[in-house]
Amino acid sequence: MALIVQKYGGTSVGTPERILNVARRLLATQSEGNSVVAIVSAMSGVTDSLIKLAKEVSNQPTEREMDVLLATGEQTTMALAAMAIQHMGGKAVSLTGAQAGIVTSGVHTKAKISNVTPDQIQKHLSDGAIVIIAGFQGETSDGAITTLGRGGSDLTAIAIASAIDADACQIFTDVDGVYTCDPRIVPTAKKIEAISYDEMLEMASSGSKVMQSRSVEFAKKFGVEFEVRSSFNNNPGTIVKEESAGMEQVVVRGVSIERNQAKVTVAQVPDKPGCAARLFTALADAHVMVDVIVQNVSASGSTDISFTINRDELEKIGDLLDRVALEIGAGEVRKQDGIAKLSVVGIGMRTHSGVAAKLFEALAKGGINIQMISTSEIKIAVILDEEKIAEAAKLAHTAFGLDASA
Amino acid sequence: MALIVQKYGGTSVGTPERILNVARRLLATQSEGNSVVAIVSAMSGVTDSLIKLAKEVSNQPTEREMDVLLATGEQTTMALAAMAIQHMGGKAVSLTGAQAGIVTSGVHTKAKISNVTPDQIQKHLSDGAIVIIAGFQGETSDGAITTLGRGGSDLTAIAIASAIDADACQIFTDVDGVYTCDPRIVPTAKKIEAISYDEMLEMASSGSKVMQSRSVEFAKKFGVEFEVRSSFNNNPGTIVKEESAGMEQVVVRGVSIERNQAKVTVAQVPDKPGCAARLFTALADAHVMVDVIVQNVSASGSTDISFTINRDELEKIGDLLDRVALEIGAGEVRKQDGIAKLSVVGIGMRTHSGVAAKLFEALAKGGINIQMISTSEIKIAVILDEEKIAEAAKLAHTAFGLDASA
Repeated sequence: MALIVQKYGGTSVGTPERILNVARRLLATQSEGNSVVAIVSAMSGVTDSLIKLAKEVSNQPTEREMDVLLATGEQTTMALAAMAIQHMGGKAVSLTGAQAGIVTSGVHTKAKISNVTPDQIQKHLSDGAIVIIAGFQGETSDGAITTLGRGGSDLTAIAIASAIDADACQIFTDVDGVYTCDPRIVPTAKKIEAISYDEMLEMASSGSKVMQSRSVEFAKKFGVEFEVRSSFNNNPGTIVKEESAGMEQVVVRGVSIERNQAKVTVAQVPDKPGCAARLFTALADAHVMVDVIVQNVSASGSTDISFTINRDELEKIGDLLDRVALEIGAGEVRKQDGIAKLSVVGIGMRTHSGVAAKLFEALAKGGINIQMISTSEIKIAVILDEEKIAEAAKLAHTAFGLDASA
Repeated sequence: MALIVQKYGGTSVGTPERILNVARRLLATQSEGNSVVAIVSAMSGVTDSLIKLAKEVSNQPTEREMDVLLATGEQTTMALAAMAIQHMGGKAVSLTGAQAGIVTSGVHTKAKISNVTPDQIQKHLSDGAIVIIAGFQGETSDGAITTLGRGGSDLTAIAIASAIDADACQIFTDVDGVYTCDPRIVPTAKKIEAISYDEMLEMASSGSKVMQSRSVEFAKKFGVEFEVRSSFNNNPGTIVKEESAGMEQVVVRGVSIERNQAKVTVAQVPDKPGCAARLFTALADAHVMVDVIVQNVSASGSTDISFTINRDELEKIGDLLDRVALEIGAGEVRKQDGIAKLSVVGIGMRTHSGVAAKLFEALAKGGINIQMISTSEIKIAVILDEEKIAEAAKLAHTAFGLDASA
């Protein structure tokens, strides 16, 4: 008999019919001889409605009360899911984050789980009940309701799986798993059977938004193996786990793309300590999220510094950088949107050489110009003209042997 | 500086605008130098929507999960109310029933408050915050969410007022207070300034549905004086309190009416021990709520027993009583709807004689026939033809000198 944690996101529980469907899945899992814990999100749309309601009484609701308000969304789903199981003749009990023993830091709207005391969960499991737990929420040690921020229900699932030492943790979502590339862009993309935490993290931060990075980081830290799969079919999904020896034989696990990027170049930044710091401190103060940063070696006492940001952040910059450039004695500031990022990710890069060369060659053959390059240990990212991104993704996908066999 | 508890019902917090209005009232009360605790209900309509949602996943939701679901209604309001106060520059903090220290029995959907540990309330009050508490809910000693049933938010307010030894407990509702009679029936009805717990209880059980009896009983038991008043204006309301010497000088405090009644008579019930018991046990088993019961002295070894019920309960009876009557050797069972109950209530009856005579005389003068009579220490109830009830109420109201001076 296995102990299984299943997490169902907002789309999977978006209507009463879908909640009944989730109830059937949970009962089926239990009837195969397993103990079952389910983590549920708010029904899709509910969180937005609550936020809208809050805005009607306050243009800047406090985070403490926002947490109290939003926590009702998951509480509603958990009660309905338990009722649905009971309706089908099963045994179920619902628990809020606090009741499930999820203790968090006191930072409202983005609390961190500090520990889990799963006494209630274990008590109800040993009674034979399916235990339904509200995702996304917890309680501070002095009893205030907190929420965990974006992707918080995934985090709940992984933390609970760790705390009760579950045999499996399944993250049910509206996609079949993690793909070698977005199938809408690259029709030959295929589902990845197994991926390492590090690869998943790089994919997530490169535009493949199946899960938030923090949940993957948490799973990595506590060694929780989990599976991302669809709640709308019974296909196996993608297993996310510690890397194993065999995994390194694949050089590139997947190709991520991120559109809607913009590039900013500050020319002739004096090659003196503190100049780059001044630049990026000014951006941080303006809450601009910088992605790739490239600076080449200085040849003539000054150097160009380029970085990319989400296109929507461009307006936050305004003439900020012109002022900073003047202060530090740099040259012109050039901004350009209409660019995109392509990343190839794989832990095999650590042991295989020539990966970058292979990528550049593939793009060159397609006549695609690379504007910037940035690498990490298991990722190579290139900045391209946005118009070329789909073609570039196909070329890279083929070059690294990722295409599904026809 | 006084410590004031205010309770706002579902209509008073029915929209974001009304919640802002409640926030203004709470701030105004605080700015007069008071410490303020507010108990809030779910926004009107929310509880019904949640019940509808539950019915979509289960035709018979369990009571435990229904409590979990319904408790979100008050939690939503409390967060919005706290946000509204904060938006206006005030300091506020919301607490669920559990957080406010309301410990209840384990009976779901109609739990009883067993004790209140107001540590959190007092802590936040001493921080200068307005404390907003979810009405209608609590937590069992082993951590399950419970709700208190109909009128539960009033009960929360009175229990908290008692626990923190508040100087005033104000129940804000959509009426101005308790009237000598329903002003829609008797236009000369006037607001009662002060009423005793016992009178309020008799009024409540006689059709004046300003508050549920159990909240009044709770207030009586713990000696909590409270005021029923409107959240839509600033008029003083009705004070409900221990009876005082002066109160007895008014013979009749008010006139209550209850329409939609039905009368059932079982003829010739044998005058033997156990026959009436068989009759009413059968009704209780069928969940029929019986109101007035009248049995006259036996003359010939048998007697007629009559009782009234809500008209809607008639169909529950069906042919049940015919069978019981056969068993116990009674005669015919007669059912009649289209009747109503009129009650005159007042603690002055204890010390004044002739009250019944005065009522009967007033009705007789109007040509109104009395079908049944039932009395308690401070109430005289009569059963009449429903068509005559408005006229009867006016006659009684005038006879006991309750009419407002023009």
